[in-house]
Amino acid sequence: MQKIGYLGPPGTFTEMAAVNYLEDKRVKGASLEAYMDIERLIMAIGENEIPAGIVPIENSLEGSVNITLDYLAHKVNLEIQAEITLPIIHNLIVKPGVELADIEKVISHPQALAQCRDNIRKYLGDIETVKVSSTAEAVNQISSKKAGAIGSRLAASRNKLEIIKEGFQDESRNWTRFVLLSRPGVASGVRQLSADKKTSIILAPIKNRPGILHELLEEFARKNINLTKIESRPTRKTLGDYLFFIDFDGDREDRQINEILKNLRLKSSYFKTLGSYDILEFSSEELAVEYN
Amino acid sequence: MQKIGYLGPPGTFTEMAAVNYLEDKRVKGASLEAYMDIERLIMAIGENEIPAGIVPIENSLEGSVNITLDYLAHKVNLEIQAEITLPIIHNLIVKPGVELADIEKVISHPQALAQCRDNIRKYLGDIETVKVSSTAEAVNQISSKKAGAIGSRLAASRNKLEIIKEGFQDESRNWTRFVLLSRPGVASGVRQLSADKKTSIILAPIKNRPGILHELLEEFARKNINLTKIESRPTRKTLGDYLFFIDFDGDREDRQINEILKNLRLKSSYFKTLGSYDILEFSSEELAVEYN
Repeated sequence: MQKIGYLGPPGTFTEMAAVNYLEDKRVKGASLEAYMDIERLIMAIGENEIPAGIVPIENSLEGSVNITLDYLAHKVNLEIQAEITLPIIHNLIVKPGVELADIEKVISHPQALAQCRDNIRKYLGDIETVKVSSTAEAVNQISSKKAGAIGSRLAASRNKLEIIKEGFQDESRNWTRFVLLSRPGVASGVRQLSADKKTSIILAPIKNRPGILHELLEEFARKNINLTKIESRPTRKTLGDYLFFIDFDGDREDRQINEILKNLRLKSSYFKTLGSYDILEFSSEELAVEYN
Repeated sequence: MQKIGYLGPPGTFTEMAAVNYLEDKRVKGASLEAYMDIERLIMAIGENEIPAGIVPIENSLEGSVNITLDYLAHKVNLEIQAEITLPIIHNLIVKPGVELADIEKVISHPQALAQCRDNIRKYLGDIETVKVSSTAEAVNQISSKKAGAIGSRLAASRNKLEIIKEGFQDESRNWTRFVLLSRPGVASGVRQLSADKKTSIILAPIKNRPGILHELLEEFARKNINLTKIESRPTRKTLGDYLFFIDFDGDREDRQINEILKNLRLKSSYFKTLGSYDILEFSSEELAVEYN
């Protein structure tokens, strides 16, 4: 049976991404396994403990998930098999029958609490907040009628709790990109060809000098290839020494893209292709999987 | 008296940056005020509650401090007055007289615990770790002879505790860049002219299309201006819509730089100059301030 790891505990948005991905690809019989942190999960894939795993890589409000980028750059040789984008919908979750006026404290991950700050004040006043390590953990911790948690619909349904306010976040547009990772050459068993792929690379130029990034990007501009993300991040050596993380539209199997990659590799002291992969975007209406 | 806010509680590395900055600039009579989170501090400067403040903006291991970048882009109009780079030296801190064998648990911020993971195992074995919100808070919490904390030399000295292992982090090269912020036009009272300045800008191109970043960077390449950092970060609207954060060598008062900024502004739907500022880098030997 195909095993896929995800950032747990059960009920996280990463599990929602995994469930919706498997549903979309009509994969039967895969089993999901929760890992308690991103580092452990990525290392488990790298060390062949598990064939594939899903981790968050970027959120529209918080930016890149640094630990994911760093581990992909420095700790393992993994490939991205697919990108899964989900709307992040926070819900205020309580024991059945509990009303707003009963709630005396709200539990969640610090980012979820921050993203719901205005609504907490609006609906619950100046209430105590308790910070825990994940939204799923917050939902697990609801043991009394005086506590509310902010978390996913999946976590509410798993714990047989009620959603008293759906879409509790202050800004409605909140998305997270997740990636399905596996070792290179390991068929994830769920791969499909698609017309529109994206490719991710990491590189360090041979010598840092004025104009070097402009020169590297000329490879893409000349062939009219669209970049979807660029980020310079410190190497783990000295401050001021940077790696570039670049995402762009296209498949490395394509002749033009292949040429770009060859040229960039010649100009780099460090070069890694993280793979060409399918893109899956779910809207909130499409998240229709009934969780149980 | 000049007030400068910093990310507290007292004893954080941000306070060390503030103390060393004031020492270096020979500023007398300034008073430092701790703020409990970056958001509150940046808003306090923006809303004229305090004239200036120091926050972390990038760490060599963890990457950008997302909350700082986002608040500078979206919430306030502040300028960077100076950049302060400090080596981050973690220490294992205990009550006077405590030995390694006495320690039964280690308290610190999750990032500090992660950065000392190998040394914790090497010197303390498979010991309990307790995660708290800052390294300074960890040092404050040492009340028994069975606990060790990982934190700054400043926090140890403030609490009259002992450093039992200095430089406890696994990788010796760990740096953080801090920035001194104030409202535009507010003299920080500590500004000095220097030959080598750096300038930071944030921009969004008028229309995202293949080659647009290449075209923007041509402005710098043509004038041989060195970029020191570039990062695309999601706008707070839809995923795939990006702002560029660009740092480069040079002063906006310089004619060439001024021309670049003018040209970039014409090509942008959003454009913000975060200022041209002095760069201060401290080596570990230079952190000779005696804290008390």
